[in-house]
Amino acid sequence: MTFILDAVDFKKGQGLVPVVVQDAEDGVVLMLAYSNREALKLTLATGKAWYWSRSRNALWLKGEESGHVQLVQEIRLDCDGDTLLYVVRQTGDGACHEGYRSCFFRRLTAEGEQVIEERIFDPAHVYKK
Amino acid sequence: MTFILDAVDFKKGQGLVPVVVQDAEDGVVLMLAYSNREALKLTLATGKAWYWSRSRNALWLKGEESGHVQLVQEIRLDCDGDTLLYVVRQTGDGACHEGYRSCFFRRLTAEGEQVIEERIFDPAHVYKK
Repeated sequence: MTFILDAVDFKKGQGLVPVVVQDAEDGVVLMLAYSNREALKLTLATGKAWYWSRSRNALWLKGEESGHVQLVQEIRLDCDGDTLLYVVRQTGDGACHEGYRSCFFRRLTAEGEQVIEERIFDPAHVYKK
Repeated sequence: MTFILDAVDFKKGQGLVPVVVQDAEDGVVLMLAYSNREALKLTLATGKAWYWSRSRNALWLKGEESGHVQLVQEIRLDCDGDTLLYVVRQTGDGACHEGYRSCFFRRLTAEGEQVIEERIFDPAHVYKK
């Protein structure tokens, strides 16, 4: 499997590539996260989305705490080889740690920002401190 | 308009944020690019997608050479404020400089990589050297 990982250019981002995460059902963009070689290897091996947490400096199985794991149906690589797209089945209520389905729940306009999604779960219940 | 730009966290990425670009018509993820404060300001002001080219170290109006400009219908910001999503109407044939509609025209599997889109234009005709 190692040769597959070589198709990805991890150098440009000092070992990390951004991963766009899209819902397989309706194409909604759920989030953007980062992956390194090890996280991609785990994702390919397990079919679940693993990322690299820049804030915790650690490998991160999405949903390890919330239970909202992402089952990866397709991994796509862009033309420059420095960005991944995961097409996923999002289990549980949503992808965003703030309780929304998508992390992109705010719209920016020249007039200001505006929340345009409904909160669908209570983060305090899902993420135990 | 300046206060809107303050909603975006440009610090984490040394002045840059990734921008996921999605087609307004059918939700296809077309590309990922990078923006800085100035490029976002130009995008908000003109309704056309401006980015920061990391390879050329310059502001970049998408389509300035190919004519394939992106008309931005919605700008979304993620929960952490460090990633943007542009929902666009892609004019011209496609977004990818290699002649595909989307930059994510390759699929990665444990067995290898595979091109899964048709090339829809000839880059040599569109990008004059």
